[in-house]
Amino acid sequence: MLNQRNWIITENCFDLKSQNHAETIFTIGNGYLGTRGTHEEHYPGEERTTFIHGVFDDVPIVFTELVNAPDWLDLTLRLGGEWFSLTEGEILSYQRQLDLRNGLLSRRVEWRSPQGARWLLLFERFASLTNPHLLCQRVTIKAFENTTVEARATLSGDTDNLNYKHWDWLGQGLEHNNTWLHLRTRSSGIELGAATRLTVDGGENLEHTAWDTRNAPTLVVTTELKSGDIVEIEKITAFYTSRETTDPQGAARRALETLPKRAWSGLMESHARAWQREWEACDVVIEGDDRAHLAVRFSLFQLLAAAPRQDERVSIGAKALSGYGYRGHVFWDTEIFMLPFFTYTRPEIARNLLSYRFHTLEGARKKARENGFNGAQFAWESAATGEEVTPTWVPHPTDRTKLIRIWTGDIQIHISADVCYAIWQYWQATGDDDFMAHRGAEIFLDVARFWASRAEWNGETGCYEFTDVIGPDEYHDHVDNNAYTNALARWQLSTALKVLDWLEGRYPTKAAELRRSLELDESELTRWREVAEKIYWKQDESNGLIEQFEGYFQRRQIDLQALEPRTQSIQSLLGIEGANEANILKQPDVVMLAYLLPELFDEKTLRVNYEYYNARTDHTFGSSLGPAIHAIIACRVGKPDEAYEHFMRAALADLEDVRGNAHDGIHAASAGGIWQAIVFGFGGLRFEPDGPKTYPCLPRHWRRLVFRIRYRGQPYEFDLCNPQTGVAEG
Amino acid sequence: MLNQRNWIITENCFDLKSQNHAETIFTIGNGYLGTRGTHEEHYPGEERTTFIHGVFDDVPIVFTELVNAPDWLDLTLRLGGEWFSLTEGEILSYQRQLDLRNGLLSRRVEWRSPQGARWLLLFERFASLTNPHLLCQRVTIKAFENTTVEARATLSGDTDNLNYKHWDWLGQGLEHNNTWLHLRTRSSGIELGAATRLTVDGGENLEHTAWDTRNAPTLVVTTELKSGDIVEIEKITAFYTSRETTDPQGAARRALETLPKRAWSGLMESHARAWQREWEACDVVIEGDDRAHLAVRFSLFQLLAAAPRQDERVSIGAKALSGYGYRGHVFWDTEIFMLPFFTYTRPEIARNLLSYRFHTLEGARKKARENGFNGAQFAWESAATGEEVTPTWVPHPTDRTKLIRIWTGDIQIHISADVCYAIWQYWQATGDDDFMAHRGAEIFLDVARFWASRAEWNGETGCYEFTDVIGPDEYHDHVDNNAYTNALARWQLSTALKVLDWLEGRYPTKAAELRRSLELDESELTRWREVAEKIYWKQDESNGLIEQFEGYFQRRQIDLQALEPRTQSIQSLLGIEGANEANILKQPDVVMLAYLLPELFDEKTLRVNYEYYNARTDHTFGSSLGPAIHAIIACRVGKPDEAYEHFMRAALADLEDVRGNAHDGIHAASAGGIWQAIVFGFGGLRFEPDGPKTYPCLPRHWRRLVFRIRYRGQPYEFDLCNPQTGVAEG
Repeated sequence: MLNQRNWIITENCFDLKSQNHAETIFTIGNGYLGTRGTHEEHYPGEERTTFIHGVFDDVPIVFTELVNAPDWLDLTLRLGGEWFSLTEGEILSYQRQLDLRNGLLSRRVEWRSPQGARWLLLFERFASLTNPHLLCQRVTIKAFENTTVEARATLSGDTDNLNYKHWDWLGQGLEHNNTWLHLRTRSSGIELGAATRLTVDGGENLEHTAWDTRNAPTLVVTTELKSGDIVEIEKITAFYTSRETTDPQGAARRALETLPKRAWSGLMESHARAWQREWEACDVVIEGDDRAHLAVRFSLFQLLAAAPRQDERVSIGAKALSGYGYRGHVFWDTEIFMLPFFTYTRPEIARNLLSYRFHTLEGARKKARENGFNGAQFAWESAATGEEVTPTWVPHPTDRTKLIRIWTGDIQIHISADVCYAIWQYWQATGDDDFMAHRGAEIFLDVARFWASRAEWNGETGCYEFTDVIGPDEYHDHVDNNAYTNALARWQLSTALKVLDWLEGRYPTKAAELRRSLELDESELTRWREVAEKIYWKQDESNGLIEQFEGYFQRRQIDLQALEPRTQSIQSLLGIEGANEANILKQPDVVMLAYLLPELFDEKTLRVNYEYYNARTDHTFGSSLGPAIHAIIACRVGKPDEAYEHFMRAALADLEDVRGNAHDGIHAASAGGIWQAIVFGFGGLRFEPDGPKTYPCLPRHWRRLVFRIRYRGQPYEFDLCNPQTGVAEG
Repeated sequence: MLNQRNWIITENCFDLKSQNHAETIFTIGNGYLGTRGTHEEHYPGEERTTFIHGVFDDVPIVFTELVNAPDWLDLTLRLGGEWFSLTEGEILSYQRQLDLRNGLLSRRVEWRSPQGARWLLLFERFASLTNPHLLCQRVTIKAFENTTVEARATLSGDTDNLNYKHWDWLGQGLEHNNTWLHLRTRSSGIELGAATRLTVDGGENLEHTAWDTRNAPTLVVTTELKSGDIVEIEKITAFYTSRETTDPQGAARRALETLPKRAWSGLMESHARAWQREWEACDVVIEGDDRAHLAVRFSLFQLLAAAPRQDERVSIGAKALSGYGYRGHVFWDTEIFMLPFFTYTRPEIARNLLSYRFHTLEGARKKARENGFNGAQFAWESAATGEEVTPTWVPHPTDRTKLIRIWTGDIQIHISADVCYAIWQYWQATGDDDFMAHRGAEIFLDVARFWASRAEWNGETGCYEFTDVIGPDEYHDHVDNNAYTNALARWQLSTALKVLDWLEGRYPTKAAELRRSLELDESELTRWREVAEKIYWKQDESNGLIEQFEGYFQRRQIDLQALEPRTQSIQSLLGIEGANEANILKQPDVVMLAYLLPELFDEKTLRVNYEYYNARTDHTFGSSLGPAIHAIIACRVGKPDEAYEHFMRAALADLEDVRGNAHDGIHAASAGGIWQAIVFGFGGLRFEPDGPKTYPCLPRHWRRLVFRIRYRGQPYEFDLCNPQTGVAEG
């Protein structure tokens, strides 16, 4: 490791009121599944949740959602005949820690029972990064008198997603110290096999019992302890689904059968090694700012924990695998905010995530077709198949007779260009020609076809236009000629032509195959060129300002400062219509554009637009995607302290819950944005003809910034000292 | 009993495909709860459901629903080591019977196990009518070789309403052969205590085990049988909720503690006596038509099974307690269709049902207030509080991006008059002045106030109008001056004035109290009188036709015959808009009106309107409420055979599932309508100054019709022979 500090997320007291926030923070995962940080024993109001990538099922209103898997954490303890619970007796000491180095979540509790018995307990858990089907728990219990310990572990299919049930029971079984359960999702028909083993080391007169309760087989073990004795209870659970194997319950049982009698240590060792390799590829060190440093590592941990390593048919949802927000649906958040981190540190994972888009091309084609367009139009919210799953209507938060129409699935069209942008960036960064030739190119061509069919010719202006859209700034819907959308569409069309040129030179057979299968002729390519050249684009010649969309400058002027301090978004304050009519942004499309396509902005244009839109953006409660991008551009215009303010808004979104919604799951796009802010903002990384180069712009109090990337197969480490604060530390 | 035939509903084969229909038919209940006829063991696709009156909880879209209680039926058997299941091994014989005389549901199965062992099983269950908190099951098993029997009974809180979960676990416990569970609904906070006891008689080496699985405590018993041995397994469950007691789980446990060791026979005996008393009050005999006779008794059984005897804060929903349709919500179905049966046979129950409206007056006042009116406007769909719970929007059945706006909760206003109509009818039939004085009058006055504030003065016509309403015929919404609504409003206003007059004469203190609490002055009464006198009313002088609503005669003429045969409603065929524009009725408002307010119709008017609207009504797949009313009016115009055709459409709606939706629950309004068709249609019962008198009009093949009523405290039996078919049987 580069640095021994700032690796541990710590909770020093147990608080039921903030438990749902803590559950998000203490989420662990291994790229196959993620499990929120609920406790082994149960508490009212908890959201005991495990999401397995790709296990979606139908649900009203939001159409489909990641299904809450069986609860593998359940482990309840009867100590000397009294049920262990933090809400009973007395907590003498409490500390929960998530070790980001190895994804080990532990909880150390000294407890005095209601009847006065003292106990010392250490709970540990991890989701194996080596074998992602294995979930490991250990409880170490010390007794301070002669007593008994009973541990119960139920493998329960009785789980729900915020009250909604998805599992049907198919079968179960048990023997001695292990049990299995076989379930199937009610609509999508995905089968899940789960198996659990409970072993105990320590104590005397050990007794194993097993309860064959339907849908909740339970393993029970009792042992007797003498004062000072320590007992270790080890519980290993295996999950397989029919997405990986035709016999998920057999696979889960076999996974346990092959384990040694005492499995924890061996599994933990290889798991920790796997995490060490992850961090060697991507760790970031900030000296001089422990709070920021820990927050950055936490963000990277959560991204790594949700990153599919064995599966290229899934992607990372807006809340990763850590909460119910957006129900596991995949947005542009993945491509534009999270992917750069993977592209530049773990390109194998980036390739999986981009392949998800390739495998869901049929869904995107269906969406285009149903909307009357050609080619592939990616879903604003995407799940198992790539079909659009944005809820069309959601209940009004206060008036139950009303509904709110969600338009993003209909008209937030920029995502199709964003996906291509990420493919291009990946290709540039990795040189993975094979991916571009066999997956990326087809996406590029079919998306270009979509843009060309979506473009509307305006004879008066002599421009192709995109009317009735939503840009990244969702406070304004049904707008015409959104600058971000138009510029990305232009970029996508012209880049698609470049990709085709390249393909024809390097992979002529593949190019011919695509031309044939897509029925792509010269006249269509000519049209792409023409559309790209004539897409509506307007910039004020006198001051360089780019209008976010037609008529934006005429929207009602709001004095943001006058509304401070506030605890809700501008949209909540003004209402949906009110925000639509005002000039305040949820996130700044033009600043975003300046980040993605810097060639469109000279230094003066960049500064002018940043200043203008920065003053008109709802940074605190608007989009959580904005602050990291603002931080980057603030660095580019030489304002590191302002950049730092933006950066910390992003960095603390989860750990300090500055937006008040971290209980819904982590802000995964923000987490990815934080890494980009570090590398491309403060680090000032640019890829120049002779390789990657940094133009640092560190906040005053940062003494040193170190980060690593891979670029075209080569690892790079950048170790940047702050000239303002002097020498870096050892 | 009046007659020994036609008491048994029988199913002679086990068919998974039609199991949900059978579950509805084999629903049992005791006025406290209803339980669908699922089997003791589990089958895929089953809807294991118990609804307890008044136990509502929040749910998306439909706002609130009766909650599926814990499953008290679960009893799985391992016979000689093999799990008993009708989908394994061989069914040698199968018969399930619901005995309507006593509500005993039994199932006799001869089964050959997959390994070839033969077994004879008799399953029995009833929900005690004597102590409605007690639910009784018995299984009698005969072995044909030396073998073992294991029985497991799980008391599971893991139940859901069509995937939606409502229960939180609070606690549980078990000892030897009994267990208890303590739950709470997630939104409404209603607690439920359940307790179960499992006892066994027969076999050797009996062993009891208990599994303390969280949320699913399980009792297990094993015994050894010799060839020819019989074992009886008795399972008694008790349910209490916090609606009846502050300590529901204690009450449930105590209910079992006081039972004798072998409880079935004693409980069954008093239960059967209680049912016998019910039938003595209300039985109907039809000689010459077994099919109709059984269907009538089945309808009465389901009404009696759902009728609250101990609770005046609940009412009977549109599907009684037998299925998820309409989620337990209460409609005008109760007052207009079901209540007459209770009013004239079990007035104590009718009083409870009408008291429900009194206790929900606050909800009705809230609805009026929120709609800008005065007084009390009853909810179109009502649940725990009387607030409007009609879903405002429901998902489109095929296009998931669309929603359907449900307008009934907004503008189907006739229900407020319907409630008063039922109160008036109850008062007339019973002479229950106490009810009218202390409950009915307040409803009458506050509803009159609503109508007066809702009426719109039209200066041009010199009339008070009710525009933008829905009448009983829901194919046509947003109509003006619906004949049914206007006539009932007029009736309600003028009757309210009569009620007040009566109250002032007989209960002057109560009258003064109401005038004070409602702030009712003379000017308001004058206004009621004026509105009642001038409500829009139009009848064609030449032919006597009443137009269902303004402009109905101009709606598009549809040839109903040309669309036959069909398997769906006219609304499904034409679409919501298409049906709205056409002249086909879901149910005939004017015919309905002729039934409720016969004084408005002379003989010619009755005939003309019946013939006209009868030809334009979707009898087969329109409203299930219509056919019984059509049957009555057909009798009045002297068409008993046509009446019979209508009658059988109603009578077979559940048993023969002629509408294809009986799996959602029984058609409770139709069930009540069937009784009215018998008594007021075929029986021709009228209340004349010298008492009730019949003017029979029996279908040709009915030899005899017998029914009983109570009227002003006196029992009456009418024994009608058909002059066409000769002498009645013994």
